[in-house]
Amino acid sequence: MTLATDMIVEKTRAQKWFETLQQTCRQRFENLEAAHWTERQNAPTFVTEETAMRDKDGGGGVMSILRGGRLFEKVGINASTVHGSLAGDLLRRLAAEKSVQGWDKNPKFWASGVSVVAHPLNPHVPAVHFNTRMFWTPTKWWFGGGADLNPYLAIAEDTEEFHTILRKVCDRTDQNYYSRFRQWADDYFFIPHRKIPRGVGGIFFDDLNTGDWPTDFQFVTDVGRAFFKAYLPILLRRQHAPWRESDRDIQLVRRGHYAEFNLIYDRGTKFGLESGHDPRAVLMSLPPLARWP
Amino acid sequence: MTLATDMIVEKTRAQKWFETLQQTCRQRFENLEAAHWTERQNAPTFVTEETAMRDKDGGGGVMSILRGGRLFEKVGINASTVHGSLAGDLLRRLAAEKSVQGWDKNPKFWASGVSVVAHPLNPHVPAVHFNTRMFWTPTKWWFGGGADLNPYLAIAEDTEEFHTILRKVCDRTDQNYYSRFRQWADDYFFIPHRKIPRGVGGIFFDDLNTGDWPTDFQFVTDVGRAFFKAYLPILLRRQHAPWRESDRDIQLVRRGHYAEFNLIYDRGTKFGLESGHDPRAVLMSLPPLARWP
Repeated sequence: MTLATDMIVEKTRAQKWFETLQQTCRQRFENLEAAHWTERQNAPTFVTEETAMRDKDGGGGVMSILRGGRLFEKVGINASTVHGSLAGDLLRRLAAEKSVQGWDKNPKFWASGVSVVAHPLNPHVPAVHFNTRMFWTPTKWWFGGGADLNPYLAIAEDTEEFHTILRKVCDRTDQNYYSRFRQWADDYFFIPHRKIPRGVGGIFFDDLNTGDWPTDFQFVTDVGRAFFKAYLPILLRRQHAPWRESDRDIQLVRRGHYAEFNLIYDRGTKFGLESGHDPRAVLMSLPPLARWP
Repeated sequence: MTLATDMIVEKTRAQKWFETLQQTCRQRFENLEAAHWTERQNAPTFVTEETAMRDKDGGGGVMSILRGGRLFEKVGINASTVHGSLAGDLLRRLAAEKSVQGWDKNPKFWASGVSVVAHPLNPHVPAVHFNTRMFWTPTKWWFGGGADLNPYLAIAEDTEEFHTILRKVCDRTDQNYYSRFRQWADDYFFIPHRKIPRGVGGIFFDDLNTGDWPTDFQFVTDVGRAFFKAYLPILLRRQHAPWRESDRDIQLVRRGHYAEFNLIYDRGTKFGLESGHDPRAVLMSLPPLARWP
């Protein structure tokens, strides 16, 4: 299935998976947060809002944010499914980037995905980002996504563990995926103007279409399950580490770099803002507090 | 003089003025800050660093930042003079935007300017931005710049006063400037993805070349003197206003929007990062602390 048809069945399956994963993640992050409170009912939970495209017929999603926790200063988990017709610069740029044949004559698109960004309060606990998405056009479909670790006080052991688990999940589908997608993450999660990486990498992939939708979808669901598995041990190991104001300062400055990356370079952010999705949903990844000294 | 020659004399005059204005502004902001300290010698002053283009022969500038004051949480004042040859996407985009004839064959440029961004601590004191610059290419030169007020708790009286003073300075050169440049500021200092203005406007102009360099330069120096005059009474009126945590929250969130504007849309920021100027200098405008809740 390299030529896209309407793919109603596949779209529905993908969308359902992204929505299910959003719910599962919400539950997991809430449980982790609640463990930091003597009276669990006082722990903050996700506040959920429906979001919509500027064009009201264009679909939308569910934005959920947990704020002000003892473990998590902010966690954003979005699932959205949007559709419509592209136009102007955005259509021209994407058609060229993605080599979509005949898109100018029938510029329809459909995209569904889930993203998670967690900003822990303790500067010793790395921030984490995860996203997977399916993109459909009348002549071509693909998956994209990735997971990357953003420690502000990097520890080699954490980096290695995160990568080991991602390698395993990649190997299950294709022995070449990990080295390709790890390199892609290193290239992608890089801040050119500062010449520094955003974090310590992970995996990143885009335009994934092997011609076999079920296999590609299986890989995407595997990554969805693996990212939490890769993050959890690091979180558990670091969550009670004592920290000082100077650690917090480093964290806030590095979060500023994180914001720079997302606002200037991130593909999903660009697409979201330019295609007219709710900016609160597109920008939920931004840090709760950041410093530019 | 619509056709640019080397313009050594004009370049030197412009550069000197920008450097002088930087020094004057530094002194003024330091004096304002010092008035908030019983022992003036304890007041923070500007820390000055030389900055350079990535290409070491490309010039550079002086970045000065005052941090952690009682009146000013952060003030950045940069003057820089950079030159070299443009290439790639940046050249193509600018050549098209600026209609510079034959720039692809002789892609030299020279640019000099001064920028000021003040982020007061008290949420009742508006932030202010000011910038003027001269840009030279082998076949065309122009001035650009502007000044805009960014109150986080807007007060009509302040907005009116700021605009009145800017109107006066514009009228001195051309009766049409204020309405044109005010409109341009409204169009420019706008955050499309949020559909909100960045602040309450001011003036903005670009591609200013009436064919008479001395007149255009005079206007640029007038604006340089006027922006402080326009800001000072507002600052003095609001500097002791009592504020609450909820005012600070509003300020931090609005500063996040300010950062979004600068990182996604601002021409000077884009040009600075893409042409390879020191990112610390280009991004000195970013707020000392910002919140994305």
